[in-house]
Amino acid sequence: MHVLITGAAGMIGRKISERLLADGELNRRAITKLTLHDIVTPDAQPTSATSIMPIAGDISDPVLIERLVAEKPDLVLHLAAIVSGEAEADFAKGYAVNLNGSRLLFDALREANYGPRVVFASSIAVFGAPFPDPIPDEFHLTPLTSYGTQKAIGEMIVSDYSRRGFFDGLAIRLPTICVRPGKPNKAASGFFSNIIREPLVGEEAVLPVDDTVKHWHASPRSAVGFFLHAATMDLDKVGPRRGLTMPGVPATVAQQIEALRDIAGDRAVDLIKRKPDDTIRSIVAGWPQSFEAKRSRDLGFQADESFHAIIQTHIDEELGGTAPVTR
Amino acid sequence: MHVLITGAAGMIGRKISERLLADGELNRRAITKLTLHDIVTPDAQPTSATSIMPIAGDISDPVLIERLVAEKPDLVLHLAAIVSGEAEADFAKGYAVNLNGSRLLFDALREANYGPRVVFASSIAVFGAPFPDPIPDEFHLTPLTSYGTQKAIGEMIVSDYSRRGFFDGLAIRLPTICVRPGKPNKAASGFFSNIIREPLVGEEAVLPVDDTVKHWHASPRSAVGFFLHAATMDLDKVGPRRGLTMPGVPATVAQQIEALRDIAGDRAVDLIKRKPDDTIRSIVAGWPQSFEAKRSRDLGFQADESFHAIIQTHIDEELGGTAPVTR
Repeated sequence: MHVLITGAAGMIGRKISERLLADGELNRRAITKLTLHDIVTPDAQPTSATSIMPIAGDISDPVLIERLVAEKPDLVLHLAAIVSGEAEADFAKGYAVNLNGSRLLFDALREANYGPRVVFASSIAVFGAPFPDPIPDEFHLTPLTSYGTQKAIGEMIVSDYSRRGFFDGLAIRLPTICVRPGKPNKAASGFFSNIIREPLVGEEAVLPVDDTVKHWHASPRSAVGFFLHAATMDLDKVGPRRGLTMPGVPATVAQQIEALRDIAGDRAVDLIKRKPDDTIRSIVAGWPQSFEAKRSRDLGFQADESFHAIIQTHIDEELGGTAPVTR
Repeated sequence: MHVLITGAAGMIGRKISERLLADGELNRRAITKLTLHDIVTPDAQPTSATSIMPIAGDISDPVLIERLVAEKPDLVLHLAAIVSGEAEADFAKGYAVNLNGSRLLFDALREANYGPRVVFASSIAVFGAPFPDPIPDEFHLTPLTSYGTQKAIGEMIVSDYSRRGFFDGLAIRLPTICVRPGKPNKAASGFFSNIIREPLVGEEAVLPVDDTVKHWHASPRSAVGFFLHAATMDLDKVGPRRGLTMPGVPATVAQQIEALRDIAGDRAVDLIKRKPDDTIRSIVAGWPQSFEAKRSRDLGFQADESFHAIIQTHIDEELGGTAPVTR
């Protein structure tokens, strides 16, 4: 089978590519080709079983879209997006890429008229306060950012196009990914990962919010699992409502910190420096805390077992199995 | 003030224009100009107080949009749309007009950068079964038609653009309009009006569904009232969630028929011919039955008092105050 991944140079896109190349198959079908798209050229290497076609360019460019869809990939994992902060800061770019780009891709698949499987990366940013905790599966989408709006619209189109039979799609609302590998970044959500990742390697991390802040987490490994399950499951079971909140681990910052203490000891925890930041506190106050996510669990999507497991996954995947800082 | 109405030749658009021309003012501001758009030229006549600029054309044409927005109307009532059945039958036309047309209009208003009031005609078609009865205000949008999808997307954009301050908008989800004046049409919902309107003038009407079917109704007069209230109310009270289900009258077909009997007698009711139609029955089974609509009521939107009042409004507005058929 031929798999197209948009946004394949991003953190999740890269991990999905690596997983598909390592497995060489999906649901017992050999993966013969990966088309890997991003704004920069994705750098994955082919294997004896799987060839790679890297394509770099802007997803809001119709010519690029034509190239992505020309060979009728059997499975399309659509992750390409301008992230939340940038979509808010650059209105035109956010709508161009996240809304127009997605529409171009979905319409090209419709016009190609062959009904592929499509998995669209949505986000819990489709929800904005106030909401109950946990948020039920039937709660309305109430985005408070342009990014969340664009993702919610993408979900609507995935449902309608699937209902009409243009493709068979699922929009999966990803929890905040934790622990995000790499360097600390300026995303408002960055601290959820920073306070775990940095202390594990002996570096200080800044905590800008209160310990009581609760949020909804999934490891990168779980996120990859969500995409692969969405790519292979029987979508007839889902029915016409194709937007699904993925299961996650609800954890307060205090619970995150205690899990870090259990795994890496007081020395690690002492590296977390409290520096309250009112801007970040007010942004985070509008974010979801937890979800019922009953539909997705019933459909076989699996969250991490605990926040401890999330930390252990990071240690396994990024630190070779042991954290340098131990008690 | 200058008011732009798109879809001004439609039934509701015409009634809004007539009301604004008769009142000559809105919220104590003189209406000096009405720009009336539709795909055919709207035929309203100017008054001494209010000039009229009719503009005919396709709302998905950027040149047309430019003309609509050129004079920066203070108030935009956006009703232009391909109706549900046609948007389902003609995929390209529905998305072109209902989604692309709305985006062109909203973006032109954004670029004109003057923050007008915008009222967007949404529909209870943004909801599709299954749902609880009544449907609560926080229930998710689950359209089962492309029309409903396009309206739901329009709502999302109205909320985001309002949040960003591009304009101050409200999306109002209209109940099924009953009694719809004119001739019987082929819309699946037509019978809700047909079984009242036709018997009142001594004509037979076909009832294709069971008496137990319940639905959510508003008179054309109430619909006009919704638009004018949305045009003048304090939107700060609404907050960032700019999609509102309008209040309506829940009534079963049996209750509709008994109201007709109370007003026009057995002779009128006897003109209703039961001809069950499985296609229409299954379409209608996916439609909402009733709503809480607490938010909109709390914000001052007013429904008809009863289904009797809905029939009486039709008799007053369309039949000169008395129904030809009386007991």
